[in-house]
Amino acid sequence: MLFHKPDSADLAALSAWATVLPGASASEDYAHDEMTEYGAFAPDALALCESAGGVAKVLGYCARKNIAVTPRGAGTGLCGGAVPIHGGVVLSLERMNRILEIDENTMTATVEPGVLLSDFIREVEARGLFYPPDPGEKTATLGGNAMTNAGGMRAVRYGVTRDYVLGMQVALPSGELLDLGGKAVKTSSGYSLLSLLVGSEGTLGVVTRLILKLLPMPRANVSVLAPFDDLDACVRAVPQVLACGAEPTAVEFMEREVIACAETYLGKRFPDTSADAYLLVRLDGPSAKALEASCGQLAQTLLDLGARDALLADTDERKSSIWDARGAFLEAIKSGTPSMDECDVVVPRDKIADFVRASREISRDCGVRILSFGHAGDGNLHIYALMDDLPPETWANARQAVMDALYRQAALLGGQVSGEHGIGHAKAGYLRESAGNTAIELMRGIKAVFDPRGILNPGKVIG
Amino acid sequence: MLFHKPDSADLAALSAWATVLPGASASEDYAHDEMTEYGAFAPDALALCESAGGVAKVLGYCARKNIAVTPRGAGTGLCGGAVPIHGGVVLSLERMNRILEIDENTMTATVEPGVLLSDFIREVEARGLFYPPDPGEKTATLGGNAMTNAGGMRAVRYGVTRDYVLGMQVALPSGELLDLGGKAVKTSSGYSLLSLLVGSEGTLGVVTRLILKLLPMPRANVSVLAPFDDLDACVRAVPQVLACGAEPTAVEFMEREVIACAETYLGKRFPDTSADAYLLVRLDGPSAKALEASCGQLAQTLLDLGARDALLADTDERKSSIWDARGAFLEAIKSGTPSMDECDVVVPRDKIADFVRASREISRDCGVRILSFGHAGDGNLHIYALMDDLPPETWANARQAVMDALYRQAALLGGQVSGEHGIGHAKAGYLRESAGNTAIELMRGIKAVFDPRGILNPGKVIG
Repeated sequence: MLFHKPDSADLAALSAWATVLPGASASEDYAHDEMTEYGAFAPDALALCESAGGVAKVLGYCARKNIAVTPRGAGTGLCGGAVPIHGGVVLSLERMNRILEIDENTMTATVEPGVLLSDFIREVEARGLFYPPDPGEKTATLGGNAMTNAGGMRAVRYGVTRDYVLGMQVALPSGELLDLGGKAVKTSSGYSLLSLLVGSEGTLGVVTRLILKLLPMPRANVSVLAPFDDLDACVRAVPQVLACGAEPTAVEFMEREVIACAETYLGKRFPDTSADAYLLVRLDGPSAKALEASCGQLAQTLLDLGARDALLADTDERKSSIWDARGAFLEAIKSGTPSMDECDVVVPRDKIADFVRASREISRDCGVRILSFGHAGDGNLHIYALMDDLPPETWANARQAVMDALYRQAALLGGQVSGEHGIGHAKAGYLRESAGNTAIELMRGIKAVFDPRGILNPGKVIG
Repeated sequence: MLFHKPDSADLAALSAWATVLPGASASEDYAHDEMTEYGAFAPDALALCESAGGVAKVLGYCARKNIAVTPRGAGTGLCGGAVPIHGGVVLSLERMNRILEIDENTMTATVEPGVLLSDFIREVEARGLFYPPDPGEKTATLGGNAMTNAGGMRAVRYGVTRDYVLGMQVALPSGELLDLGGKAVKTSSGYSLLSLLVGSEGTLGVVTRLILKLLPMPRANVSVLAPFDDLDACVRAVPQVLACGAEPTAVEFMEREVIACAETYLGKRFPDTSADAYLLVRLDGPSAKALEASCGQLAQTLLDLGARDALLADTDERKSSIWDARGAFLEAIKSGTPSMDECDVVVPRDKIADFVRASREISRDCGVRILSFGHAGDGNLHIYALMDDLPPETWANARQAVMDALYRQAALLGGQVSGEHGIGHAKAGYLRESAGNTAIELMRGIKAVFDPRGILNPGKVIG
């Protein structure tokens, strides 16, 4: 046994700093994340922390006792990052869910890590401010978003979560709390521990507070839906859509088959059914007038590149009929098959068409149905391998073959393992192959600096 | 002696991978950077590398022999980062100055580290593309920009160098070359070694290639110059200028006294002489029409906040009369005094007025003339303490007192040591105080992972 299994004396000790339940009394939810395919691992204990000091004390104790600690936000991850694969303590941050401050003068927000993205967006927007990171899963926590460097649909123009984390308080296995950054919007003051911690998936420290950068809310937006004859023509248009000068916020691609899933799931029609593939582009700007010229530029570019039409969505109803469908894709796909696996590779933006083509061949070769959609503007694809009615053993093998082939293909095209979902334990093997020994050894060395005994989220990211 | 002083046998060995000169034969330029105030330290040898492989070999050799290596770009730094304070080898990247590719499909550029920013901008713009990082010193190298996480005037809207480094090849003291990232525009694939290396000032590895993100060139821009009665009113306007929805690219503040220096230095009049302080705001957009509405919004905001006027600069001549002056501030100030010291602290954007007020008191208390200008939109101030006709000893003490007080004040206001110039050796003491022991120990641990013998740019950043 690598780690000490917490016993009743440990639980009693931890109770000084958190509400502690034995694993057997905790909800089964804490044993997995959204991808149940990656297995259920019950923790030995659940510690619900309510303060930064409590988190630090729990970490310090577990480090001294060699108890594995798996930090957890809302458990909406897709790679097993919050799953206690080595047992031990699940340290839940769900009760640390206060928005501590929204500072309109500096356009920053200070929050606890357990604040849900949906709650945060509501509060920020009520003040006319804007938090650009926009991952599809709105019931995720901000701490989880920071720890996976979540992306989302607006990354094309506005960047990802790392670009919005100005400050962080983090509890270390030494039992200390460390404050990094602050409300200043830029810095060149030593190694960016902040950038390193963002995306570290709870393997280096546990985030106890975040200072996030906000922008003024763009006063106008418009979406353009462009039907194409096929997905190939659709994704081939992406580089020129990005280059046309319209400064798109989001550039998403979607296929008829995925849209149909969403229509069934939502019981709501998509506004166009004429085509096999669609490019959906959103523009934001300071005024409707300012957007007019960009919108014309964009529509002309799309038509020149073979779009059958460029349908303008400038009413709330029209926008929501499109974006609601887009927002429901993951749940819709999930609801239509008994099990699935996913990858969210990212490739250079001119290689999306190649990757989509290759994924279809892989689907055929492996006999597994595949659906895909994603952030075309970032080259970030979400590809789902679906079990459907395959017998469990066939599925297990075929699924593995599909994933292996997809990651191999992404590497060939100069891509990377994860665009925004992270590595967790499910993708650790693929990261090892893709990053190579030297990078993995440097990451392991860094891990040992922060967490010498390796108690923090063991088995994740670097395996 | 901490390090082995390279002897003639070492120079002969290094000659296999670089053009090597004994220190005595190298130009005196290699002993200092732009801030000669921080002293001159001649290297024992100068190695001019011409290939990534050569850099890796030089590093591997020096690590084995315990020879200090100080990497150097164009030597335009302001904190002594490229100065060989422990002697040893200066590893110059100036000959690795090829733009390897500008890829219009992915909007990326692949460059060697010694490419000058000015050369890069010219080539990129010739293709209708745009590289947003815009540090004032255009004869800096891109490698140096990456290693200091250079900022510049467009950071308000577009971010800093770290946001544009998609990929990096780096030579390690182990003698290996490591490739990080690539042409994909986002990633959540393990610890971001890339973000960590950006801003590490050559203390963790030596950059041998960069992949940089480009944007389409905005098709229109306009600048608005707003005269204010005094600097206080001017910088107090900044938060609302940022919040007004006009999406400014740059928000600079400047005082009459600094403008007068630039007028003398350039022999060219500034277009307005009516006021003591100015806010200069630049907007970029896809078309002149799209900018019209934003420009109106901005002008109204400025007038509401007490600007005497909002002067539009929409012709090339008018723009250059303003921006040429702004671009010449550092050189103009430098030319008017025998010696100076500088700090480029960054504070939350609503604390700029407080900081400027405090800096004036510090100037009075210490008897040292101070001039300041800077990136008001980022809270990033460049403050210069000027020797003028102070006797050398008085100056040495007063200068120290001024700097100590400025950094103390920045910390009180929630600021950080450097906004964009970096730490080098000149600011290492201030970083230690500001970041605290825990953060510095983590940085030292990380340094030891990359560079176990500590031969790479010793004495910099973490001291």
